[in-house]
Amino acid sequence: MKWWGWGDEGTEFQIDNRPDLWPYIRASLNLPDDRPHSPRVAFDSVRVPEKKINRAFLNEVTERLGSSRVREDKSERLTHAFGKSFRDLWRMRHGAVDYAPDCVLYPETSEEVSALVASAVRHQVGVIPFGGGTNIAGCLEPIGSRDRMTVSVDMRRMNRLLKLDGESETARFQAGVLGPDVEAQLNRSGFTLGHFPDSFRYSTLGGWVATRSAGMQSDRYGKIEDIVLSLKMVTPAGLIETLAVPRASSGIDINRLCIGSEGALGIITEVVLNVHRMPERKETLGYLFPDFQSGLRALHRCHREGCVPAMARLNDPKKTALSFAFKTAQGAAQRQVGRLVKSYLKHVRRMKLDQACLMLVSFEGSPEAFERDRRRAGGIFRQLGGFGLGAAPGRAFQSGKFDFPHLRDFLWDRGVLTDVSETATVWSNILPLYQAATRSIEAAIKAHCRAGWVGCHISHTYHAGASLYFTFGLDPSPGDDLAQYLRVKKAAEDAFLANGATLSHHHAVGYEHLPWLEKEISPTGLKAIQSLKHGLDPSDLFNSGKFQSGYGFTEWGLPDDGDKPTRKPI
Amino acid sequence: MKWWGWGDEGTEFQIDNRPDLWPYIRASLNLPDDRPHSPRVAFDSVRVPEKKINRAFLNEVTERLGSSRVREDKSERLTHAFGKSFRDLWRMRHGAVDYAPDCVLYPETSEEVSALVASAVRHQVGVIPFGGGTNIAGCLEPIGSRDRMTVSVDMRRMNRLLKLDGESETARFQAGVLGPDVEAQLNRSGFTLGHFPDSFRYSTLGGWVATRSAGMQSDRYGKIEDIVLSLKMVTPAGLIETLAVPRASSGIDINRLCIGSEGALGIITEVVLNVHRMPERKETLGYLFPDFQSGLRALHRCHREGCVPAMARLNDPKKTALSFAFKTAQGAAQRQVGRLVKSYLKHVRRMKLDQACLMLVSFEGSPEAFERDRRRAGGIFRQLGGFGLGAAPGRAFQSGKFDFPHLRDFLWDRGVLTDVSETATVWSNILPLYQAATRSIEAAIKAHCRAGWVGCHISHTYHAGASLYFTFGLDPSPGDDLAQYLRVKKAAEDAFLANGATLSHHHAVGYEHLPWLEKEISPTGLKAIQSLKHGLDPSDLFNSGKFQSGYGFTEWGLPDDGDKPTRKPI
Repeated sequence: MKWWGWGDEGTEFQIDNRPDLWPYIRASLNLPDDRPHSPRVAFDSVRVPEKKINRAFLNEVTERLGSSRVREDKSERLTHAFGKSFRDLWRMRHGAVDYAPDCVLYPETSEEVSALVASAVRHQVGVIPFGGGTNIAGCLEPIGSRDRMTVSVDMRRMNRLLKLDGESETARFQAGVLGPDVEAQLNRSGFTLGHFPDSFRYSTLGGWVATRSAGMQSDRYGKIEDIVLSLKMVTPAGLIETLAVPRASSGIDINRLCIGSEGALGIITEVVLNVHRMPERKETLGYLFPDFQSGLRALHRCHREGCVPAMARLNDPKKTALSFAFKTAQGAAQRQVGRLVKSYLKHVRRMKLDQACLMLVSFEGSPEAFERDRRRAGGIFRQLGGFGLGAAPGRAFQSGKFDFPHLRDFLWDRGVLTDVSETATVWSNILPLYQAATRSIEAAIKAHCRAGWVGCHISHTYHAGASLYFTFGLDPSPGDDLAQYLRVKKAAEDAFLANGATLSHHHAVGYEHLPWLEKEISPTGLKAIQSLKHGLDPSDLFNSGKFQSGYGFTEWGLPDDGDKPTRKPI
Repeated sequence: MKWWGWGDEGTEFQIDNRPDLWPYIRASLNLPDDRPHSPRVAFDSVRVPEKKINRAFLNEVTERLGSSRVREDKSERLTHAFGKSFRDLWRMRHGAVDYAPDCVLYPETSEEVSALVASAVRHQVGVIPFGGGTNIAGCLEPIGSRDRMTVSVDMRRMNRLLKLDGESETARFQAGVLGPDVEAQLNRSGFTLGHFPDSFRYSTLGGWVATRSAGMQSDRYGKIEDIVLSLKMVTPAGLIETLAVPRASSGIDINRLCIGSEGALGIITEVVLNVHRMPERKETLGYLFPDFQSGLRALHRCHREGCVPAMARLNDPKKTALSFAFKTAQGAAQRQVGRLVKSYLKHVRRMKLDQACLMLVSFEGSPEAFERDRRRAGGIFRQLGGFGLGAAPGRAFQSGKFDFPHLRDFLWDRGVLTDVSETATVWSNILPLYQAATRSIEAAIKAHCRAGWVGCHISHTYHAGASLYFTFGLDPSPGDDLAQYLRVKKAAEDAFLANGATLSHHHAVGYEHLPWLEKEISPTGLKAIQSLKHGLDPSDLFNSGKFQSGYGFTEWGLPDDGDKPTRKPI
């Protein structure tokens, strides 16, 4: 991955083939034509903090792993310093790298991880478990003690499928395996995990488990916490190892103490998961609804009538406009069809196109199950005013789905700051929350930035509710652009918690969401996590400072000083 | 509930209407005709331990609750002393009551619970949260400190539905509500929780959550841990309160720290759960399979083909024979039909009737969904040799399903000792585990008892596996019958753990399963639970001694002294 942005070095967002995108963004934010590109510092001019080396530790791990798997060079330190949060990339772009691990270790087995953790405990060296480095909540950086040596443990060499049980449809993986390698190793035998987060290409199984990840098809296959049967996690107090059984009643579920522990209790080294036979048929279809509410009603009814799509993404009007602007160049014939459809919807169906909402739904399974679900859900959609757009929007989505994170870098180069904040709530609260959060974000944009844009889509649905995924873009006012961003981010999270929704449905806590954690889980709930931390990692070696109490907006970088957008220096 | 057995005082197992049952049991165990009834001590001759009273505490809680909700009489103390495990009932029957709470408190609100827990902490009084008292794993008795005053907190006055959100299909209940009252309050508005454990009539929501309960229809509605959205739990360190959202990524899931905590961390006072519209149609059907393996294959295929019944109970041959013996008296015509079916199966279908396995399956939902599921599953069953017995076995099961626990008392009165041990494993391990555990139990019976009987049924199925529910009956040799029982129970649990299965699928740990816990969750896993305990309840006031390390078979009551069935005195 690039040290300063998303994707491999050399890859870039392909704007040329999406002719409507930049015009749409420029118009939305009312940007001047001759907008200058934002500067980005060069690798050579980035300074990383001086190394704190614990020689005895380093000798031990070098003896164990060999020097090729103990890396101290600047490039390694820099690419393991942060994740991919807005603040992370802001610091990289500005060369303001206030932290980097002192070295990076590459274990290959659970036993090696146990040995290096034992060394770390013996020599009181800080440890940051590192999966793919894609996290956007500040999960990869100690915010407690930074006085000691800290090592990043890159798990990506632990990438093997250890056992596939085809009858039980379970698979044991080493936890450092990347998304594509999970699927490749399973697909070979006709199986799939079905876990496709936006970060899929670059994130690891262990990272998914540590952060309670969701994938695009989690409505069908479950969030990661729903599909883990057992795991191994190396903690400073020893190895946690659970039994791979479908359900149990053996006291507090130890799997669930490890899932969501965000690197603060130990390193997840192996995971056993539910897997599934690859579906014979799958397809993503587009539907256009007259408004957000009718689309929501349609998804609600799918749950009530037991025909839940494998994926359902309902865009609000703004996100719908962005989705259409995201489409690749079309031939004349396609454009003509598009115009006819538009005209039909406007004049015959009396749709107000600026309020229309695009929903993408995937169905999959055996040909019969596919057909049955598609027919039943399609019937509900039509009853609620949905207009079938066929498979073209689905193909466009599927081909571009992993490109979206690249867009942030592209826009940032042009001075436009973008980010996402997502949450979940129960059905009866979705519309009030949607309205409140949108208002709150818009108000913050108005108060602090020159211009901005906010859209939302429903990304996952459940029996009891759904997740709302907000995307925003800012054209900052002159001055401190990071502080302006933080104001808007805070407005989103404040609105979530004020309206009974979670601080995150699948992006974890890290330190970016830490100020809201106590509000969500109560002070005693936080104390429970701290009790675990204290018992397993009494010296706070792992991801130091996470899950601490009293981490407020000052610590977060934004003193609560009324409207003045200032922040503490990094 | 009776202090010495199952059910309300006055209710008794109705044997007269089940003419085949006692003959079947007598024949299975080769019991002599003139078997004498076992003695059971009278209430008046039971002595309960002397009270340890902390006057200051008692004054505080009496002032808060009023004297009618602070009970110290013998009857209250006795009915709150134990659960309904074999050992519990053995002690009651023998008048060997070595523990009873010093008083019983009846709070009515979360606030009252918080106040009484604060008093308990202030005065260092032990607390046992008490739901319905139906637990069979030893969850209601302190095994750590017994030197201080201990109070049982009976939650059954906290029995109200606080909020029903029909759109989200969620409901907030006080945690002391009994099963029938959960359903009655929901049914009124057309909803159901769908949680029907064998203990349904007498157990509470809070108890279900504290022990990770499963109900008969959990394959459809989920185990209790799958359907909790949020909860309140009063701990010595304060109130844990979580947010009712369908899914979240806010660090370690606090709900899951409370679920399965078995009264050792605090008192669960409120729970928000998924509920469902009552199904328009439901029915339980019987199928007879030529053997256990083909029945298993049929259930496996239901999962792989996406037509999972709401309930599926597959009996092994022994349990099948018991089920048929359990049926109520039939008229001459019915008997004649039964004979004809038998003859057909034997001579035309060439079924070996002593290997045949009865499966009961429930389908429910809209008329269309019901019909679709029944047809698809029925097709699979037929392909695997299943013979449809229609709705009669289902009706018999549904009418008798909550009577089964009464049978233990009835048989005990006749000197036959019975109990259950259940577990879960992945599909590929079910048959090996079934055979190993059956052999292990049979060997223990042969080594220690005069005669015995063991049967098994599959009680729940999942994507990755299923639960196996063993029932055994013993005719003890002269001498220490409790020790003989413990040998057999140990043989079952030993076999589970030796074969990679869980110590319990839905009966919890308590102290009856504590010797196996470390093996299941690893020493560091146990340390994690102890860290939680230490952080939230540092004086070990709640359910003292649970989740301790080093609780071996000596502590359990059975010194590992080879074949000699002795045990430490109670």
